Amino acid sequence: MTLPSEKTFPRVEPERLERAWAALSEKLSSGQLRRDEQTRERYSRDESDSGVYPPDIIAFPENTAQVSALFKTCQALGVPFTPCGARSGKSGGALALRGGVMVSLERMNRIRSLSVEDLTAVVEPGVITGDLMRAAEAVGLFYPPDPNSWEFCTLGGNIAENAGGPRALKYGVTRDYVLGLEWVLPDGEVLRVGRRTLKGVAGYDLVGLFVGSEGTLGVATEITLQLIPRPRQVMTALVIFDSVVAAARALTAVLASGLLPRTLELMDDVALRAVAGRGFAFPPGAGSAVILEVDGSTEEGLLAELAQAGEICARLGATETLVAQNEDQREKLWAARRLVSPGLRALKPHKISEDIAVPRSRIPDLIEQLKALGARMGLLVATYGHAGDGNLHANILYEGPHQRPLVEEAIQQMLKLTVEMGGTITGEHGVGHAKRDYLAFEQPAPVIALQRRLKTFFDPSGLLNPEKMFPGPDCF
Amino acid sequence: MTLPSEKTFPRVEPERLERAWAALSEKLSSGQLRRDEQTRERYSRDESDSGVYPPDIIAFPENTAQVSALFKTCQALGVPFTPCGARSGKSGGALALRGGVMVSLERMNRIRSLSVEDLTAVVEPGVITGDLMRAAEAVGLFYPPDPNSWEFCTLGGNIAENAGGPRALKYGVTRDYVLGLEWVLPDGEVLRVGRRTLKGVAGYDLVGLFVGSEGTLGVATEITLQLIPRPRQVMTALVIFDSVVAAARALTAVLASGLLPRTLELMDDVALRAVAGRGFAFPPGAGSAVILEVDGSTEEGLLAELAQAGEICARLGATETLVAQNEDQREKLWAARRLVSPGLRALKPHKISEDIAVPRSRIPDLIEQLKALGARMGLLVATYGHAGDGNLHANILYEGPHQRPLVEEAIQQMLKLTVEMGGTITGEHGVGHAKRDYLAFEQPAPVIALQRRLKTFFDPSGLLNPEKMFPGPDCF
Repeated sequence: MTLPSEKTFPRVEPERLERAWAALSEKLSSGQLRRDEQTRERYSRDESDSGVYPPDIIAFPENTAQVSALFKTCQALGVPFTPCGARSGKSGGALALRGGVMVSLERMNRIRSLSVEDLTAVVEPGVITGDLMRAAEAVGLFYPPDPNSWEFCTLGGNIAENAGGPRALKYGVTRDYVLGLEWVLPDGEVLRVGRRTLKGVAGYDLVGLFVGSEGTLGVATEITLQLIPRPRQVMTALVIFDSVVAAARALTAVLASGLLPRTLELMDDVALRAVAGRGFAFPPGAGSAVILEVDGSTEEGLLAELAQAGEICARLGATETLVAQNEDQREKLWAARRLVSPGLRALKPHKISEDIAVPRSRIPDLIEQLKALGARMGLLVATYGHAGDGNLHANILYEGPHQRPLVEEAIQQMLKLTVEMGGTITGEHGVGHAKRDYLAFEQPAPVIALQRRLKTFFDPSGLLNPEKMFPGPDCF
Repeated sequence: MTLPSEKTFPRVEPERLERAWAALSEKLSSGQLRRDEQTRERYSRDESDSGVYPPDIIAFPENTAQVSALFKTCQALGVPFTPCGARSGKSGGALALRGGVMVSLERMNRIRSLSVEDLTAVVEPGVITGDLMRAAEAVGLFYPPDPNSWEFCTLGGNIAENAGGPRALKYGVTRDYVLGLEWVLPDGEVLRVGRRTLKGVAGYDLVGLFVGSEGTLGVATEITLQLIPRPRQVMTALVIFDSVVAAARALTAVLASGLLPRTLELMDDVALRAVAGRGFAFPPGAGSAVILEVDGSTEEGLLAELAQAGEICARLGATETLVAQNEDQREKLWAARRLVSPGLRALKPHKISEDIAVPRSRIPDLIEQLKALGARMGLLVATYGHAGDGNLHANILYEGPHQRPLVEEAIQQMLKLTVEMGGTITGEHGVGHAKRDYLAFEQPAPVIALQRRLKTFFDPSGLLNPEKMFPGPDCF
């Protein structure tokens, strides 16, 4: 089979592109349209390692009317168009596979309002997730979803992908915080769906349908989010184990004991190696580490929770438990966690990250089998991630293109194994381009067929973000 | 205009019903089909006070294949069919407005599995919500959604309506706990959508779309639910105020202070009167009461939270704060809360309950204006409910049918007022039959049109649960 990164797709003819450029130039100012090589190159890739696909034109709308006009123009001229946020996605959802127009929402980046009394924020899609987090915390509120890219990803992208993050264990994912959307449909029609209230059940849950639709059913141009009061106390511990399987078993026991930490992040030996030397030293002999973070209203309560979790971990083989003594130490732990992904890139020239999830009890088993799979195939496999909620990032590290067939075979085995355990091929990164051909591992044909029909219902021409989510014609 | 309860709809011709009876008799045993007057009468109403609509045939499938066969038969013969759970819904979603076949899921009532390690339960749709709650708590787990009808409503009904409840303030509503569904589409096709893992984003969120679709897009025949560890400590206080507006202001202040109780239930003077004498005595002169419940991991933490909330309430006019000293006292407080709805029925022969929600900060204002509206129109208005999340149950009590036009006028004014405040016509009860003609108060025509098209996409014949959710042809 052909790997996603090698696939080519039909591109738009030059004359059609000229017409599109001319038509778009009437709708947007010259500073809002680009087609130079440098910009095309910059917008040709994301964080998925699934190929380089330069768009022909990149547009930077600054308001909803311009987004709508862009969509209408592309539809009228038969030009494919693909929305993007910060291009930090890990499944290729923002790649312009057929070229055409890339619609970047990055200039719509205002926090329009933040209400302490209503516990809501109204934002534009290009707002950086971290900027909202900080703005909320400054007034005593809390926006829980925390994809590891929160310092640079956008809320519009989070909504497209239904982003998760470590705190999903306790607080849920992006869709749990989206109350209402201003939404531009594929044909350019602008709708307001959802609500401004914390609860509401009027009509079908269109917000639920649109969140996680990966830019294939339209884009959000305004987002109403629910916030919660900021937890008063947070405590973070690093628990060291000899082996990742021991760590995984301890996590399962902690949760079965009735504790609900806000994060339970696991790193295996390879992940530790990736971080070591980057300003963070793990105890010698550490085979795995867990970042356990609790939050709540009182210090005593949290200390009691940490003590209970620590006891369980010690009983199950933890060799050391270090509690962060201040915000600086806490931040250092999280910085280490965030360094895993870039650190792994330094271990080998290439990596493929598979964002799999299994029912929680299967995590130790899954990790064991992934290690065995890597050993059997002679590939370095790193596993880390949000093991507390069953969501692991399993990375295959490799030397170069000559190993791709082997890697591809390993990925297929990994995903099949995951699905056999009752799991999913994507816990939080989305299907996009990278995983479209694997969706059938998990979902039966009638379910995929229904979704294709829904895509056609919303986008009969199929011009919005084509070649995504559902298996391609040359799928294995 | 015609009130919902007076509306008539075309019924099925007798010959077609005979054919349906004969066809269904081939699929189901004789004990699973009824058409006697007594059964028809029993299944002709729900808790919405929006009319009496006897189905012609009532079917009691016992497995998914039978549900599918029922749907297929009804579609083939052109007979309308309406699913139902416990008929405890408050918006008429389970009324067989055109007669035809009522499909009761009540016999599919097994809890299939409950996993402490995976934090999941797999249930059939006819399981009583309270039965799952108890089964989960028995193994140290917790199913948070708690509609006041939890002792008799079913999980299938909760999913159809996306039911809420007092604990939604902290824990969210039904859809936040639904991971996967076995779903029978209107044409009888059976699909498995969603997942068994706590996280997962493969494909469109069909689970999100189906939850809250009020029995118009199909029914759940198996439900995979997420559970959470049972909070170790719960404490409950009753806070008394002179007036409901003072109470509402105090609630807003408690939440703005950063506390997140699991419930903040408000009762006004009329609601207190409805409960008084039913085994529960409020302090003399009480004009309003709030049930404030906190949960967490330690007693000290909760006592500190209650103390802080108590101080805020005292500063804002609370005359008394009573903390339940044991489980018995706690249960008594909640029993009082659950008695409000039946108690109000005893004050006047008729009541209409409107389940409105506004952005939280508008609650004091809304309550003030509802009282003024009642006074202006000479109607007794009771307000109570989940004021902490902005969701109120505003009840209009009246003497008899002669007052219906006045009541209707009051409802319209109430809903318009709510929408003007940025609110919704239904926080948790659904649109169903009772509110379909009001949906346009809240949602613009293009949003309603899109939803109608979605209904047609899933159910081209429109035979599944007809005349629901979207405005009727004779809508004002």
